[in-house]
Amino acid sequence: VADEKSAEFPSLTDLESVAATRVSERVWAYIQGGSGDERTLRANVEAFRRWAVRPRTLTGISSVDLGTTILGRPVSAPVFVSPMAYQAEVHPDGELGVARAARDHGWLAAFGTLSSLSLEQIAKASGLGPRWFQLYLQPDWEVSRRLAERAERAGFSAIVLTVDFPVLAIRDRQARAGFAIDGSVPIGNGADVVPPAREAARDGSTYRLRPEAETTWEVVERLKAASHLPVVVKGILTPEDARTAVQHGAAGIVVSNHGGRQLDGTPATIAVLPEIVEAAGPRTEVYLDGGVRRGTDILIALALGARAVGVGRPILWALATGGGPGVGRYMERLSDELATCLLLAGRASPTEVNRSLLRAAGL
Amino acid sequence: VADEKSAEFPSLTDLESVAATRVSERVWAYIQGGSGDERTLRANVEAFRRWAVRPRTLTGISSVDLGTTILGRPVSAPVFVSPMAYQAEVHPDGELGVARAARDHGWLAAFGTLSSLSLEQIAKASGLGPRWFQLYLQPDWEVSRRLAERAERAGFSAIVLTVDFPVLAIRDRQARAGFAIDGSVPIGNGADVVPPAREAARDGSTYRLRPEAETTWEVVERLKAASHLPVVVKGILTPEDARTAVQHGAAGIVVSNHGGRQLDGTPATIAVLPEIVEAAGPRTEVYLDGGVRRGTDILIALALGARAVGVGRPILWALATGGGPGVGRYMERLSDELATCLLLAGRASPTEVNRSLLRAAGL
Amino acid sequence: VADEKSAEFPSLTDLESVAATRVSERVWAYIQGGSGDERTLRANVEAFRRWAVRPRTLTGISSVDLGTTILGRPVSAPVFVSPMAYQAEVHPDGELGVARAARDHGWLAAFGTLSSLSLEQIAKASGLGPRWFQLYLQPDWEVSRRLAERAERAGFSAIVLTVDFPVLAIRDRQARAGFAIDGSVPIGNGADVVPPAREAARDGSTYRLRPEAETTWEVVERLKAASHLPVVVKGILTPEDARTAVQHGAAGIVVSNHGGRQLDGTPATIAVLPEIVEAAGPRTEVYLDGGVRRGTDILIALALGARAVGVGRPILWALATGGGPGVGRYMERLSDELATCLLLAGRASPTEVNRSLLRAAGL
Amino acid sequence: VADEKSAEFPSLTDLESVAATRVSERVWAYIQGGSGDERTLRANVEAFRRWAVRPRTLTGISSVDLGTTILGRPVSAPVFVSPMAYQAEVHPDGELGVARAARDHGWLAAFGTLSSLSLEQIAKASGLGPRWFQLYLQPDWEVSRRLAERAERAGFSAIVLTVDFPVLAIRDRQARAGFAIDGSVPIGNGADVVPPAREAARDGSTYRLRPEAETTWEVVERLKAASHLPVVVKGILTPEDARTAVQHGAAGIVVSNHGGRQLDGTPATIAVLPEIVEAAGPRTEVYLDGGVRRGTDILIALALGARAVGVGRPILWALATGGGPGVGRYMERLSDELATCLLLAGRASPTEVNRSLLRAAGL
Repeated sequence: VADEKSAEFPSLTDLESVAATRVSERVWAYIQGGSGDERTLRANVEAFRRWAVRPRTLTGISSVDLGTTILGRPVSAPVFVSPMAYQAEVHPDGELGVARAARDHGWLAAFGTLSSLSLEQIAKASGLGPRWFQLYLQPDWEVSRRLAERAERAGFSAIVLTVDFPVLAIRDRQARAGFAIDGSVPIGNGADVVPPAREAARDGSTYRLRPEAETTWEVVERLKAASHLPVVVKGILTPEDARTAVQHGAAGIVVSNHGGRQLDGTPATIAVLPEIVEAAGPRTEVYLDGGVRRGTDILIALALGARAVGVGRPILWALATGGGPGVGRYMERLSDELATCLLLAGRASPTEVNRSLLRAAGL
Repeated sequence: VADEKSAEFPSLTDLESVAATRVSERVWAYIQGGSGDERTLRANVEAFRRWAVRPRTLTGISSVDLGTTILGRPVSAPVFVSPMAYQAEVHPDGELGVARAARDHGWLAAFGTLSSLSLEQIAKASGLGPRWFQLYLQPDWEVSRRLAERAERAGFSAIVLTVDFPVLAIRDRQARAGFAIDGSVPIGNGADVVPPAREAARDGSTYRLRPEAETTWEVVERLKAASHLPVVVKGILTPEDARTAVQHGAAGIVVSNHGGRQLDGTPATIAVLPEIVEAAGPRTEVYLDGGVRRGTDILIALALGARAVGVGRPILWALATGGGPGVGRYMERLSDELATCLLLAGRASPTEVNRSLLRAAGL
Repeated sequence: VADEKSAEFPSLTDLESVAATRVSERVWAYIQGGSGDERTLRANVEAFRRWAVRPRTLTGISSVDLGTTILGRPVSAPVFVSPMAYQAEVHPDGELGVARAARDHGWLAAFGTLSSLSLEQIAKASGLGPRWFQLYLQPDWEVSRRLAERAERAGFSAIVLTVDFPVLAIRDRQARAGFAIDGSVPIGNGADVVPPAREAARDGSTYRLRPEAETTWEVVERLKAASHLPVVVKGILTPEDARTAVQHGAAGIVVSNHGGRQLDGTPATIAVLPEIVEAAGPRTEVYLDGGVRRGTDILIALALGARAVGVGRPILWALATGGGPGVGRYMERLSDELATCLLLAGRASPTEVNRSLLRAAGL
Repeated sequence: VADEKSAEFPSLTDLESVAATRVSERVWAYIQGGSGDERTLRANVEAFRRWAVRPRTLTGISSVDLGTTILGRPVSAPVFVSPMAYQAEVHPDGELGVARAARDHGWLAAFGTLSSLSLEQIAKASGLGPRWFQLYLQPDWEVSRRLAERAERAGFSAIVLTVDFPVLAIRDRQARAGFAIDGSVPIGNGADVVPPAREAARDGSTYRLRPEAETTWEVVERLKAASHLPVVVKGILTPEDARTAVQHGAAGIVVSNHGGRQLDGTPATIAVLPEIVEAAGPRTEVYLDGGVRRGTDILIALALGARAVGVGRPILWALATGGGPGVGRYMERLSDELATCLLLAGRASPTEVNRSLLRAAGL
C-alpha cells in the first residue's frame, strides 16, 4: 500500500503539483481559479502564516484522538469536505468517490445542489457516513423546499445554505479556459434544479437578478420548517451576519469566502474567524473553509474557535490524482499530519486546543 | 459579440498583457512609465490590498443600479475616464474613440489640454455624453481663459485644473524609449496652446520655470470667473491643500498623483483619500485616480469617501487593444464587474457603500 | 592554508551552495528539509532580520575575547554544535570529524543518542574538549538511565534532554527523497537504543505512541538522579515550559524548534527567546538554536539573553564540504566573523552584549 | 551633448546596470559588495520606501535654488561625494576625475586616506571646489596628525574622522572576487600611511587590533588641535554616540554604516537619522549616506533633518561608466532630479524642506 501511495502523490507537499498534470487546462482553471485578481484566494492561504503555534512539552500524553462531534454527530476528525460542484468534471469517480472515501474514513462530507449525481445516489454511496446537503436557493421556493425534504429522506444530517452566491462572480481564469457553470453541465439533482445566476441582467445602469436573490434572513426559518434538519449558513464573513444567522435559528455557521471564488477582496477566513466565533456565541458551532492546507492550519483554526474546518481544493486535487482512492489517501495523510501536530503540540484531542496554543508570528 | 470580445481581451486580467503586444515599445513606455524609480506607480496599485471588503448577505437586494451623479449630472457609473494626453499615439481612434465609447456607456470622460484633437472635435464625437475639460495652465493667462470659454461653449460641464504639473517629472522609461512630450507632438487645441514646461531652466544652482508656475490658489477664483463652469482641482494629496481648494471655491477635488508620473514617492492615492475627504467636508465632491483596476478597488474607494474614481492606464490599454470599440468593451466589463461586486457585497447602489464595508486586510 | 580554505568554500556566504554539490539528493533532503510546508524553517532565518544592531564607536577596545563559560565550563566561543543524528551519512568523517574540530577549536559540541558512533568513541576523539550528550528518551527507562551513566563516565559534561520529539514530524522533503530515520541506519550507541517513534499507531481516530511519550516533567529529576551531570532541556518554546523546567531542576534550556524539523508553524526561536529568558530567571542558562548563520545573528541572540547559540545545518554543510577539517575551517570563519562583529559593535566580549545593542529593524 | 549623455547612461535608472558592464568582476565586487549577508546594504535602500512625500501645490514658487551651505561654506547642492577608497581601480580618471567634476558642479567632495593620489594632487585638480579630507586613524598618531596638517595646507575645509572601521568587516563578495584592501594597492598619501587593520590578530579566543583601535572620543579634541579645521565624525548610528561626538566638539556628524560594508545588521541610516538629529541638537550639522539613489531620497533625508546627503556607489557607477565626465553628468542628472522634485513638492530650496513634507508610506 505504501508503494501505491507514494506513486500517486509522494506527500501533501506534492499533491497540488501532481494534480496539475492529471486534468485538462480547462478543469484545472475551474479547480484553481478565483475571482477578480484573486486577492482573496491568496490571502486565505497567507493569513495562516500570521499565527505561530506554541507547543507544550512533557505533557504526558501518549495518544491523541481526532474524533469530535459536529452538530452532535461523531466524526473521526475535525475536518470535513466542503461542498463543491461538478466533481465528475475532475475525475469519473466524482461524488461517488468522495462519498465513499468520506464514509470509509469517518469524515463528514457536504454535497451540493450542483452535484453531478443526485443526492440520493450520493447517499447510497455514502452509506452510514455523516453527510450534509448544500443548497443553492432556487428561483422557485418549492424546488428548494423539495430538495431539503429529499435530503432529509436520504439521510443527510444538515442543510448547508450558501448565502454568498446571489450571482456568479467574475472569474477570469475560468472564463479564459472556457469553463462555464451553466446549463451545459448536467445537474444530478433533477431537471427542475438550476445553478445560481451566471450574471445579472443588464438594463442601462441597472443590473437585475433572479427572484431568489431577494431572499432575506427569514429563509433560515422557512428552511428549518421544510425538514427536521438543522440549518448551517455558509458564506458569512461579518459578525453582524453571524448574529443575525443565530437569531434566525442557524445551528452552525461556515466562515467562508467560497474559496476566493466569489467577492474578491473579502478577508481571509482565518482573519475574521475570531470575531465571528465571538458573535455567534457558545451555542452555535462555527466552521471555516478557505486556505486550509496542512495540519498546522487546522490547529490554528481550532485554536481560534472553529469546531471543524472544511477542505475544498485539496479534495479536488486528490480526486484528480487518484480518484476516490486518492481522496481516501489524502484523508489519511491529512489525519495523520493533524494527529502528529496535536501530539507535538502536547494536546490530546481537538477540544484541548484553545487560544493558548497561539501567538502572533510577528512577521 | 461575445466572440469578438474574447478575441480582443479575454478578461480584465488579460487586458494589460494583450495591450503590450499592440503598440510599439516607445508608446508602451509612454503608457506604462512613471517617474523616478516608480515607487508611487507601484504603491497606487498595492495600497488597495491593505483593505478587505466585508460583504453582507441575504440583504434582499436583487438589483443594483450603478447610476450616480457627479457634480449633479447623472452618469451611469461612479467611474470616469481620467484626462490623458496624446491618445492618438496609442491608437488612430484616439480621443474620438474614447469620447464615443464614453457617450455610448454614459460614462463621464475628461479630455485635456494636450488632446490630439481640439476640444470642439471631441465634443462633437461625445454628443450628449458628460465630459470635463482638463486644463494645463498656459504661460499666457489669456490662453487659459479662452480654453475655459471654449470648453463651456462646447458643452463640457466642468474645468479640471491640474495642479501637480509645474514641470514635467523625470521619467526614465519614457526618456529611454525616446518618447518626448514636447512640441513634436501636435496639439489639437491650437497653435497658441503649449504643453507644460518640460524642464526648469538651469542657471548655476537655480532652476527657473515658466511664469504660470508662479500661480497661486486665487487662480481657482479667476478660472471660475472665466466661465460658468465649476472648477475641479486635480492633483491634491494633502488635507491642507484640500481645505485651501475648498476655500477658493473648488467644486470638486481629484486625489491624484498623476498615475505615479509626477513626483515619485508621493503616497498611494487610496492611502490619503480618507483624510482628504474629511478635510474637503460634505459639500465638496472628492474623486480619486491611481491604481484602480478592478471592481473591488472601486468599492474600496467609494467606501473611503470617493464620489467616483478615474481610470487612466486601463483606458489606454483598451484603446491600444481594440480602439474605440475596445474602450467600450472595457467600460462594459468594468461596469459588469462593479455591479457584480456590489451585488455580492449586498449593496444596491454606489451611495450605499460606506466605511462599514471595509476592514484592514491585516497583511 | 588560505588556498585550501578558499578551495573548499570561499566564504560563509558560499557554504550552503557548495555543500549542495557534495552530497546526494537524498542526504541533501535530510540536511535541508523541515516539516510541514517548512514555515518554521524559513521563519528561523527571517526572524533575525527584525532586529538591527547598534554599534558604539571609539570605545577604546582593541581586543575582543570570545571566550565564555557554559554551565561553568570554559569554551572559546559562545557557539556550540547542536546535536544532530547520523553524521556519517553526510561525510565518512562523521561525528569523529566534528568532535575533533570542536576539540581543536575549544567549541562545545553536543552528540546525540542517534550518533553513528558510540558516545565512548566520540569521547575518545573529542579528548578534553567540552561535550554534551543529547538524549532521546527510550521506551525502557533503564536504557535511558544507562546512556546517562555512560555519558558521565565518558566525560560528557551535561545531558541534553530533547523534549520536542514524542514522534517524528511529517517531513515531506525527506520522505520524497527516500530518507528514513529508522532501523535501517545503524545506531552507534548499541543494539538496545532505538530512535524516537517514527509515527503514531493508528487505530480508528486514535493515534497511540510508545510508552516514553507519557513522560512528564519529573523525568528531569529522575535524569538528574541517574548521573552527576546537569540536565539541559532542549526544545522549549514557551515561558510556561521554561518555568516548569526550572522548577524541576534543569540547569539550562535550549530554545529550539528542532531546526524547523518538528512541529511546523512554531515560532522562530529568536522571536520567543526574550520571554523564555525572562521566565527562566537569572540562575538558568538559556541557549538557542535555529537560523543562526552569521556573526550578526549571534550578536542578536546574545543581546536578547542567550548564553550561547547552537549551530546545526551549517555544521553539516561544512562536514559535507570538507569533512572534519571543513568543520574546523567553518568554526574558524564563524569565530573570526563573530569577533569582527563584536569589535565593530564596540563590545569586548560576549558578556558585554546586552539589550542596548539592539533596536527594531523596522522593516 | 544630449547624445553623448544618453550614450553613456540613458537615465539614473540605468546607471547601475550600465556600470556593471564597464568594469571587471573583481572591481564590481568591490563597488557593490557589503559585509555579512548584506542585510544592511539592502536595508539602506529599502528603508527610504517607508516614507511618502506630501507635495503642496499652487504655492507660487517658480524657481528653486539647490544651493545651501555645509559648515558655512556654500555648495551648489545639498549632496556631497562620500569618501571612497581606491578610485583609480574603478577608472583611470580616479580621484582626479571626481575632483574635477565636483569642482565644475560646485559639489562638496570628500577624499580619503586611501586615495590613489595624494591629497595635494587632488587639491590641485579640485581647484577652488569645496572638499573634505577623510581620515583613517593611523597606528602612529603623528602620521594622523601630519595628514590633518597637510589637509589644511592643501585647502581642505574639514577633517572627516571615520569611526566605524576599527577593523575591516568580513566582506564575502570582495573576498570571492579576490579584491583585497591591503598593501597591494598603492596609497597616494605616502609610504607611512597604512590602511585600517584587515583583520584582528587571533590568539586562541582573543582577537587583538592595532593600537589606533584603542582610541577614545578625546581623539576628536586632539584632531581639532592638529589643525584649524572642523572635525566631522563619520559612522555614527546611535544618539548616544551623537551626543558624545558633540560634547567632544565635533562640528558635524555623518550618519553612516559605511554603505553596508562594515558591521552587517546595523540599521538603515535613514531609519536612525531622526533620533541622531535630535541628539546632536541644533548647532551640529548632521549628514547621512547609505542608500541615497534618487531625488526623492534626498527630499526624505532633508525632511528628517539632514543638512546634506552623501552619495557613494552611484559616484563609482558614474566613474566606471564615463570617467570624470561621467561623474559630472551624474551630478547634473541628480541635481536636475532634485530640483524637479523640490519644484513638484512645492519647496523653493533645501532649507524649506521639513518634517511636514513626510508621512509614513504605510506599506
